[in-house]
This record gives sequence, structure tokens and C-alpha cells, in this order.
Amino acid sequence: MMKTVRIALDAMGGDFGPEVMLPGAAMALERGLDIAFLLFGDETLIKPYLAVHPALAAVSTLHHTNVAVRMDDKPSQALRSGRRISSMWLSIDAVKKNAADIAVSAGNTGALMAMAKTCLHTMPGVDRPAIAAIWPTIRGRTIVLDVGASIGADARHLVNLAIMGAAMARAVLDVERPTVGLLNIGSEEMKGVDDVKAASKLLREMALPHLDYVGFVEGGDIGRGTVDVVVTEGFSGNIALKTAEGTASQMGQYLREALSRDLMSKIGYFFARKGLAGLKAKMDPRNVNGGTFLGLDGVVIKSHGHSDVFGTSVAIEIAYRIARHELLGQIRGALAHSHETTSRPPDSQIAGGERPAALPKSAQLRMDS
Amino acid sequence: MMKTVRIALDAMGGDFGPEVMLPGAAMALERGLDIAFLLFGDETLIKPYLAVHPALAAVSTLHHTNVAVRMDDKPSQALRSGRRISSMWLSIDAVKKNAADIAVSAGNTGALMAMAKTCLHTMPGVDRPAIAAIWPTIRGRTIVLDVGASIGADARHLVNLAIMGAAMARAVLDVERPTVGLLNIGSEEMKGVDDVKAASKLLREMALPHLDYVGFVEGGDIGRGTVDVVVTEGFSGNIALKTAEGTASQMGQYLREALSRDLMSKIGYFFARKGLAGLKAKMDPRNVNGGTFLGLDGVVIKSHGHSDVFGTSVAIEIAYRIARHELLGQIRGALAHSHETTSRPPDSQIAGGERPAALPKSAQLRMDS
Repeated sequence: MMKTVRIALDAMGGDFGPEVMLPGAAMALERGLDIAFLLFGDETLIKPYLAVHPALAAVSTLHHTNVAVRMDDKPSQALRSGRRISSMWLSIDAVKKNAADIAVSAGNTGALMAMAKTCLHTMPGVDRPAIAAIWPTIRGRTIVLDVGASIGADARHLVNLAIMGAAMARAVLDVERPTVGLLNIGSEEMKGVDDVKAASKLLREMALPHLDYVGFVEGGDIGRGTVDVVVTEGFSGNIALKTAEGTASQMGQYLREALSRDLMSKIGYFFARKGLAGLKAKMDPRNVNGGTFLGLDGVVIKSHGHSDVFGTSVAIEIAYRIARHELLGQIRGALAHSHETTSRPPDSQIAGGERPAALPKSAQLRMDS
Repeated sequence: MMKTVRIALDAMGGDFGPEVMLPGAAMALERGLDIAFLLFGDETLIKPYLAVHPALAAVSTLHHTNVAVRMDDKPSQALRSGRRISSMWLSIDAVKKNAADIAVSAGNTGALMAMAKTCLHTMPGVDRPAIAAIWPTIRGRTIVLDVGASIGADARHLVNLAIMGAAMARAVLDVERPTVGLLNIGSEEMKGVDDVKAASKLLREMALPHLDYVGFVEGGDIGRGTVDVVVTEGFSGNIALKTAEGTASQMGQYLREALSRDLMSKIGYFFARKGLAGLKAKMDPRNVNGGTFLGLDGVVIKSHGHSDVFGTSVAIEIAYRIARHELLGQIRGALAHSHETTSRPPDSQIAGGERPAALPKSAQLRMDS
């Protein structure tokens, strides 16, 4: 029998705090998910919600703190005032101490990432964390990363993103060997980035068992669902994500205008409303709420700050799936395998190449660490 | 009285060549635009279209060549086989020789950019050309550049993009002092790119007369129409453009599905079809067809390779407006002014700073050039 998933919940995060975090947790439980919650926050604000959600109360332990990171706190401020004592920090720390399997917060992204880095540290072989988004596509859903944790990426970091994104696709999208594409801007001669090209070469050479690298993809391929995982560095990834959200809301506004411009349009809307409700559901960003912080020794899910109860329940369900699939262990394994592949010199090199008889201590240490 | 705009038209470019380029030119004329065309291409293919479009024939001169750049030619191939003799090269060369005010081609982007750079060279003070796109927004239209001419940009190049984009906004959007934003990924501490930050500082300090710099914008601000001009380097700009196109087509597909799923939806569509036609028109990419190559000593408009007659006529109308507003002269003036602003040392520095008594010859040359 599978173990209960232990989720550390920052009950105070987001624009609405306990008002949506706790009903959101209760809604996730109603879907039959086997979760135990560790709730962090102000008990006087949390207890009333537990009173009206007895099923949630039954699977929760409450950890009181009256320190909460504000939505407008800068990362450095949040660390100064909230380290070790805020609901956000304590939620992450529960993962570090293995009291929880995963943490969920709707607090501000910068502060949450700063605390997650400080508390959990990066995994061996990963120099920087990334944020993965679940992107609705024509064919289903695609994992896109990095959508804004850090700017720029060398080839090795892009390969790490591919490995982590593929592990996440297995957990969340339920595909055995996810297809992976590197985001680029066309295949013409004048185009292309050196690091992206080098990463492409590396991914082909490594021929990793857990992912199917298909080559370059362009911005238009994301929404088309051409691949299960789209890999890019955080600046362009964030711009792609925000631009797509902006375009979707622009189209939504055009559609509302088109269906309310005159009586005929309104009658048309009346007849088509069921079909259009399906369209609305497909466009609903709440269905894919939850940015996943990857590359740290512990997984943290960032729920959108404006999320309502339903959106919160989705982020919690994503956390549940990720923990259930033991994403962290899978990433550790895949990264270790990939590092063996690249650090082992090819046969030809062993035969013909020279190795220094002895390395200075510091270099040895660095190679082993 | 204003002079006729002379447009050099690559009649052979694009997926359909003369079949859409010439009727497209004829359609532009029907809007009352005062254009003289220089047509470059195979006369046996062009003449039949002139026969059926006498108004076009009346304002056109035909320059025969049987060399055409193919849509799948790599830039280097195109230059090798088409330099000085292809319809694409000759169209650009007509601008260089001041036989035409502007060139329009639907040929492949890489080849067109390579030929434009080789033939026209960059303007003084600009080290690389850029491609500007016209982006439909909720509030109207926004100029976005660079959407893929080159990758990466230092602060000075971003400032040049701002100046060129603002000049284009004045010509195409008809705004006196366009608002300009730098594309970034949020204002949190951990975020931001050094070059983008430096460009922002520079734009604030320069306080240029012809543009209103408003600060950083995010991906979602493009479709919202927050500013008239969005400035970014070519990699993220291209990804933003392609991602937005992909999202728009994704939404379009959802909508078609929603309005054809059952009888009620189809009845709804029947009633709302006029309103929805307005929506379709707003989403029609043909309305903003035409990537503008900026930063060269001459302006070239790239029409989309798949463009139909209407899309071609739009690209030609954009070329007309750009030439009519003497975009090139405006950019030259604005760039010269901005270089004066930055090369003149601030007063404080003149008073307190030291200047070397004599510079080596080479340094003097470099500073003057």
C-alpha cells in the first residue's frame, strides 16, 4: 500500500491566505487524495476553517507562527524577517527535515525561491534551481522550464533542465518516456545560440534512457503540444509564459466583445453557451495552477498569488502527484546517471589520451564533490 | 505636394511569387495609395498579371531577371547564387541606388536579411539590424523589436532599438511621442538582466525628445497594449512572437471546436456569426503582415512567405506609410541626437574630471569614427 503524502502548507501565503488555502486543501481531500497536512500559520486565523472542514482537521497538524511573509516583501527582506520563524520558511523546513514530502505556498515568488534555496540548497550536480510550469496545449499539457528562476543557461544547465522536466512529465503527465525539445528561434544559418546548440549536441550524444530528445522547437510549438517538455533558460521562458497568458486573455476579451455586441450575438451566445463553457474551462488558468521549483533537495510548489479555492486545490493535487511519483528520487537518479555518462571519458580517449599522474588536492576535491 | 512613393517589389518571393505579389500590389493601389512600383523578376511570369491589372501596369517599370532565391535557400547559398542578379538582391539594390524608397519581399527571412546587410550595410552608430513586428493589442497596435534578426543585445543596442522602434511607431501608428517599454521578467530583486537594467538607466538619463520611456514591461503587457513600443533582444522577441501566434491559433481551434460540438452550438454560431466575424478579423494575422528591417541604410519590408493577396497588400501599405513618413531620415536624426547626448561628457565631469593631454592616433580615430 502506498504511503500517505505529507504536504507542508503555508496557510498564510497569497493574496487571501487562510481564506483560500484551507478550503483549497479541503477541496483537494474531497477528490479522495490520501494526504496528511502540516499547516503553518496563525492558529487564531486557521482554527475557524478547521472547524468548518472537519475532514481537513482530521488529517492536519497545526504549527502556529504569527510571522508571515508579505506579498510585497523583497526576497532579502523576507529572509531577514522571516527566516526560521515565518509560515513560509517553516513549510519549506518541514521538507528539509523530512517531516513533509513536499511544500505548497502561494506567497511571493521571489521570497519563496530565496527561502527554498537558502533552506534546501541545490541538488548535487545542479548549480541553480528552476521553475517548471504546466502549459495547456492543443494535445494536452506540456511542461515548460525554466519560467523565471534564473537568467541565462549554459549547455549543462539546459541538459539538467531537460532531465528534471522529463522526470516531472512522467509524474504529472503520466508518460513513460517524454519527448523533449529545446526552445530556439528557427533553423536558419544566421540563427541559434551557442549554448542551446551545445546542449542539443550533448542531449543527442547522451541518448538518455528516460527522455526522447527530438531537437529544437519554436515558440509556436508550445501551444501546439509538439513535445511533452520544452526546455529554455529563465528569461525567455518567463517571457513566453507571460506572453501566452496575455494573448489568451486578449482573445478572451475579443470573444466577450464579439458575443455581446448586438442582440443576435447575445442570442448566439445563449445557444452556444454549453460549448463555450467547455472553451472557457480549457482556457482556465486555474487548471494548471502551480509552478514547481526543481533542482533543490526538496520540492516546493508555488501556487498563484491570486488563486481562489479551486486553483489552490489544483496546486495541492499537483503537489500530491509529484510526491506520490517520488519525483525527487527520480531526478536524483536521472541526474546521477547523466553525470556518469558525461564524466566517463569515451573509450578512444582512455586509449590514446593522457591523464595527469596526480591532481592537486583542490582539483580532486572539486571533481569528487 | 508629396512625392510618389517608389516601392521595389521582389515579384518572385514567397511561396506563391507573382501569383500573389502582383495582385497584392494592385490591391494596395486600389486603396488610393500614390505608389510607383519597380518590379523585379521573370517577365514571362509577371506580364500576364500586368495585363489583367492595367492600373498596376500604368505605375510600374519591369526589370527582368530569371534568378530567384528559393524559400529553402540558406543565406550563404542565396548570396552565392543570387548576389547582384536575383530579384531579391535587385529589389534591395534599387533602394541602395536611390531608385526606390523602400523594398518589399516575401522571400525567406534569412536570405533577405543576409542580402540586405550585404547590400545596404548598417547605419552609422548601429552595429546590427533588427526586425520590427506590428503586434495587434487590446488597445490597438504595438511595435515589438527585435523579433529575431540577432541574438543578445548590450545596453547601447537596446537603446538603438528603442529609438528605431519609436520612429517606426510615429510612422505606422501615428503617435507623436510613443511610449516605450523594455521587456523584462518582473521587478523582483533576484530578477533582471544586466544589459536590460543598464539600458533602462541610459534611457532615463538620456530623456530623449522623441520617445517616452516608461520602464520595464512584462510579456503580458504586449497584448495589453501597455506601451506603443516594446524593446527586447532578438531571441526572446522571436520566442514571444511565435508563442503569441501559437496561443492565438490554439484559442482559435478551441473556439471552432466549441462552436461545432453539437446542434445547439452550431445554432449559436449561426446567430453570433457577425460578431464572430469581427473577432476573426481582429485575430487575422494578415492585418499586421510585414516585418520591418531597421538599422540598415535603407528599409526592407519582409512580407510573410505564406501571405495571400490581401496580406501582401497590407505589407505594401506598411511600406508605403514608412516611406511616406521618411522613417529612415527620422531614425538617422534621432540616432545622431542620441549619440551627441551620450558622447558629450556631463558638465560635472568636465569641471572635475581629468582628460589625457593627448590620445594615441588610433584611439582618436576610433572615437571619431
